[in-house]
Amino acid sequence: MSEPIHDLAHIGHAELLTPYADDSLRFFVELFGMEVVQRQGRSVYLRGWGDYQSYSLKLTESDLPGLGHMAIRAWSPEALARRVGVIEEGGLGIGWIDGDYGHGPAYRFTDPDGHLLELYYEADRYQPPPTLRPALKNVPQRFTGRGAAVKRLDHVNVLAREVATNRRFAQQQLGFRLYEQIVNDDGTEAGAWMSLTIAAHELIYVADHARLRGRLHHLAFFVDTREELLRAADLLLDADVPIEAAPSKHAVAQGMFLYVYEPGGNRVEVTTGTHFIYDPAYETVVWTQAERARGQAWGVKTIDTFHTYGTPDASGIATGPPIPPTSAIPEHGGLHP
Amino acid sequence: MSEPIHDLAHIGHAELLTPYADDSLRFFVELFGMEVVQRQGRSVYLRGWGDYQSYSLKLTESDLPGLGHMAIRAWSPEALARRVGVIEEGGLGIGWIDGDYGHGPAYRFTDPDGHLLELYYEADRYQPPPTLRPALKNVPQRFTGRGAAVKRLDHVNVLAREVATNRRFAQQQLGFRLYEQIVNDDGTEAGAWMSLTIAAHELIYVADHARLRGRLHHLAFFVDTREELLRAADLLLDADVPIEAAPSKHAVAQGMFLYVYEPGGNRVEVTTGTHFIYDPAYETVVWTQAERARGQAWGVKTIDTFHTYGTPDASGIATGPPIPPTSAIPEHGGLHP
Amino acid sequence: MSEPIHDLAHIGHAELLTPYADDSLRFFVELFGMEVVQRQGRSVYLRGWGDYQSYSLKLTESDLPGLGHMAIRAWSPEALARRVGVIEEGGLGIGWIDGDYGHGPAYRFTDPDGHLLELYYEADRYQPPPTLRPALKNVPQRFTGRGAAVKRLDHVNVLAREVATNRRFAQQQLGFRLYEQIVNDDGTEAGAWMSLTIAAHELIYVADHARLRGRLHHLAFFVDTREELLRAADLLLDADVPIEAAPSKHAVAQGMFLYVYEPGGNRVEVTTGTHFIYDPAYETVVWTQAERARGQAWGVKTIDTFHTYGTPDASGIATGPPIPPTSAIPEHGGLHP
Amino acid sequence: MSEPIHDLAHIGHAELLTPYADDSLRFFVELFGMEVVQRQGRSVYLRGWGDYQSYSLKLTESDLPGLGHMAIRAWSPEALARRVGVIEEGGLGIGWIDGDYGHGPAYRFTDPDGHLLELYYEADRYQPPPTLRPALKNVPQRFTGRGAAVKRLDHVNVLAREVATNRRFAQQQLGFRLYEQIVNDDGTEAGAWMSLTIAAHELIYVADHARLRGRLHHLAFFVDTREELLRAADLLLDADVPIEAAPSKHAVAQGMFLYVYEPGGNRVEVTTGTHFIYDPAYETVVWTQAERARGQAWGVKTIDTFHTYGTPDASGIATGPPIPPTSAIPEHGGLHP
Repeated sequence: MSEPIHDLAHIGHAELLTPYADDSLRFFVELFGMEVVQRQGRSVYLRGWGDYQSYSLKLTESDLPGLGHMAIRAWSPEALARRVGVIEEGGLGIGWIDGDYGHGPAYRFTDPDGHLLELYYEADRYQPPPTLRPALKNVPQRFTGRGAAVKRLDHVNVLAREVATNRRFAQQQLGFRLYEQIVNDDGTEAGAWMSLTIAAHELIYVADHARLRGRLHHLAFFVDTREELLRAADLLLDADVPIEAAPSKHAVAQGMFLYVYEPGGNRVEVTTGTHFIYDPAYETVVWTQAERARGQAWGVKTIDTFHTYGTPDASGIATGPPIPPTSAIPEHGGLHP
Repeated sequence: MSEPIHDLAHIGHAELLTPYADDSLRFFVELFGMEVVQRQGRSVYLRGWGDYQSYSLKLTESDLPGLGHMAIRAWSPEALARRVGVIEEGGLGIGWIDGDYGHGPAYRFTDPDGHLLELYYEADRYQPPPTLRPALKNVPQRFTGRGAAVKRLDHVNVLAREVATNRRFAQQQLGFRLYEQIVNDDGTEAGAWMSLTIAAHELIYVADHARLRGRLHHLAFFVDTREELLRAADLLLDADVPIEAAPSKHAVAQGMFLYVYEPGGNRVEVTTGTHFIYDPAYETVVWTQAERARGQAWGVKTIDTFHTYGTPDASGIATGPPIPPTSAIPEHGGLHP
Repeated sequence: MSEPIHDLAHIGHAELLTPYADDSLRFFVELFGMEVVQRQGRSVYLRGWGDYQSYSLKLTESDLPGLGHMAIRAWSPEALARRVGVIEEGGLGIGWIDGDYGHGPAYRFTDPDGHLLELYYEADRYQPPPTLRPALKNVPQRFTGRGAAVKRLDHVNVLAREVATNRRFAQQQLGFRLYEQIVNDDGTEAGAWMSLTIAAHELIYVADHARLRGRLHHLAFFVDTREELLRAADLLLDADVPIEAAPSKHAVAQGMFLYVYEPGGNRVEVTTGTHFIYDPAYETVVWTQAERARGQAWGVKTIDTFHTYGTPDASGIATGPPIPPTSAIPEHGGLHP
Repeated sequence: MSEPIHDLAHIGHAELLTPYADDSLRFFVELFGMEVVQRQGRSVYLRGWGDYQSYSLKLTESDLPGLGHMAIRAWSPEALARRVGVIEEGGLGIGWIDGDYGHGPAYRFTDPDGHLLELYYEADRYQPPPTLRPALKNVPQRFTGRGAAVKRLDHVNVLAREVATNRRFAQQQLGFRLYEQIVNDDGTEAGAWMSLTIAAHELIYVADHARLRGRLHHLAFFVDTREELLRAADLLLDADVPIEAAPSKHAVAQGMFLYVYEPGGNRVEVTTGTHFIYDPAYETVVWTQAERARGQAWGVKTIDTFHTYGTPDASGIATGPPIPPTSAIPEHGGLHP
């Protein structure tokens, strides 16, 4: 066995595409409690109170919802150079860009499924304005407590036509560690939970049943406690946000979850948990089809749309963007008007 | 409008019948964390750490599961006498018994559906043995933290052929206040949530679709926090206890719930919440059929068995007690072996 | 022993006086998360999201801080009449007023120490505007989650020259139940914790060491969970609010506490807890001087100012209102600038 | 700037010395809720429910309390070899041992202050016996919920005569990252908080005012939630465990804490928190003397003994082990008998 790769530190930010930019922005500011740090072109840059960089979410107006790109920060300039070399050799490299708001030069490439990724090292540390300066100097920003008050981007879950191919790419070329996976009875892979740190997951691939390319399953934002997650459910319910899956606990990776749709049609999650993987030789936990059929940790059945819906939506791709925001998302009968 | 009735203080204890007395006892001691205070005949008396009386659960071996009786404590000897007078006049009175372990003379009667009830005033205050003596003198017993570590009996939910008749009886003859109810489109009542205190419910009647008499829906035991309830789910899952409904929040009365089956086949709940009704002129909240169809607070659909299963089970009555404990309870696929 | 008195239901609201009305208002709206429902004269009426009445706090501009009055709601018109009769006979009655915003006729009187009290029965039920309408119909108002997001007024703690005299008045003339008290070695009373409900306390008298009359110790507002209380500490710290006592647990009455000063100089508390007194014959828990010297539940020593500071401040009475808001409050070194 | 060192993964276990082995064992099993996995010679090996290795605490009978040794697991055999080379060159190396229960060959050395450390790579993964097998396969052991039910060893805090020397050793030779530190006005260092992972701290050096060598400040064990930590305080209070510092929140590193003394006289902490350091170029947070004087996060003053007491106790070294367990620990008046 070769030595572990320690070149990449963590997922720095993700870009989310939305056909309803104003509504999505209002959602992330008022309901998820994020702060706007910059507006540039068709994009708005947003941060959670615990992000040490300027932002972790770039929200960009677009014809269709989905993932714009995902950016990973390297441990050092040397580590960045090493990874770029490996990716270029692997054939999925695109090339360098000068950077973006808040970070320096970035190398663009795709995973085998076609999701756009970037690697970078240089990044600005967030400097709060006086109104957001916290009392304690080891906190990047004042905790405002607005809405769900998410702390930071936690993980990115993308759909892929072939989980195995993308999973191997992330492990071998990027150095992600594979903590958990679902393997079907026929040997195909249904999902892979990977991380660059002791956090239970940062990047997840799940099988795209529509067999499309480059789609997003969801972005997840962290809160510190389960109580905050339950509180978020109350707030989002009152705000008429469609709740796809009410708060409960995942079997895989043990995270507490709450899934909703933001107005652009993208699934977003409020998550929390302290399931850390300290083992440097962690043996991947493999779940069978039968085990997965048992539902989530406490027996809650996973809702069907969780397995079928991603962005852009299969129908949306064929027919153009959804006309009203609510038509972009699956219907659920359980919501209170 | 007549003046409110303040003769009864709260539900003091409930007697639960079980065909598997040893297994049920082990469940309440090891998994719900209750203490045995007395054994007498076919009964064991159990307490939560926060019960001020000796016990709140009397567990009695019986051919069939279900509710043995429920006992309500009066505010004073005079108040007790007043209620007994009213009940006797109403025609459902049975008569006085000398008392039971832990309390004095009690008056027996039934509600219109046939559930056995008792009223009493004299009761022993719990005196903890040295090993259970708490550090703080305003706590009745040391918090042991074993299993779900329930604090006390919270509420009793019984099935009734006619909710309206029983609901009126509880209001008019016992002085319960009706805080919430479900009224079907045809005007029949599907459920009534009632209380003697500011607590959101102590006695609940829900419609018995099997149209039997005197059956139990569930007993609920209180924990102080939602975190304790989530923790109980982990413990009960690991202990192979069948989870009927994973932790979530009720729309009616706003309680957080976790429903499981104890080995005798009775449904029991771990509950918590701080939805208090201070209003002396509270206007009953009436839910329609359509509103109820939307599921629980965060949109979770209520599982079918919740509407169909009670103890004794309809089939059990016809055929005798269940042979193995697990056959007494509905099957759920969501449990991990 | 005479029968318990059940004429009064609960403390409906309290009026808080402040020499810095604008700052105090901003505090209760932005930091405690209350809603303004009315402005009238020098007063603003504020509510927590869980108040069933229009408001529970009347904030009134005044030369000195302190308690304006406290109003208790009766169980019925008949119960109100009975209590008024008793109070008039006792000699501390003042007379009827027509009512105030949100409630009908009220009878004014004082306790022996001179605090102004009112009894009333008729009250408006709160009707939320569309923007504050909640998803669930059994919740009075949408949960906004702003700041500490207090739910409702929980209890009123007043200073008195003679605790015993006032405690007896509250018990005998108003029907409060005495749940806990501190009795000094010389037999004098240092504190009395009383309630009209199963809630652990609604009205508290503690000895006024300055031997003044009619002063306020603090108003306490409820949140549902300990996590919300800890979160409030973070928010209030960041907002430069002077924290007198950081979150911990009281020995008496078991409540979790967080004490701060609002800009008018009044002490206010965020509180939570589920220590309920169901016992109709509860034996008052009596704490000795030695027991109290041990500090709070987990051993935290009570800060000196907690025993010496009340509003209006002794010095303030002599010298007029404090010039800048911060001079009205004790200094604490532990706060981060 | 040189590239970051990624050779060591995390602190695998710590050995705690106790003159009262039976009492200490009972403490860790019954009150901290750990499981005994092995007894060997004068040592007992204990685990939290979340430890992936066999154990994280080795409890060894000894004349004096204190730290036996601390063992750090490497990322790979190659990484282990690299670190051993560096340490040998640095002159503090001792040599290889064959291993211990649960792990393979280990290299022994000391830090400049004389604390005994070990590096190892090969380790057994914990295999639970049937009674401790969890329902979910990604959890190492069933959650028993006994006592404080600690999950795993979280961090080791040791005293040192010269913080700077030891801090530099840990950074340069072991690859710890320095996240926070306290620097006195005269430039000397009062404390250093370091980690190998995104966790806010794993190894802490604080100045030893007694100017002794190789002493322990405390071992900290993790629980997942703040509610579990508050619950632990209730349990430990009832069990007559001396509470040195009641639950509150640290300013440095933002952890929630609860400090108590185990019967051997060692300080142990229950801790939780989700303050993660994702930044690969984290700028160390430096606290001044003045900032530290402000107390903990919410203004709680740090108790004096926290700055003066370590194990072995200065007096203990001179006079031999404490006779009764309770004489080994500072006295606190705040505890309820």
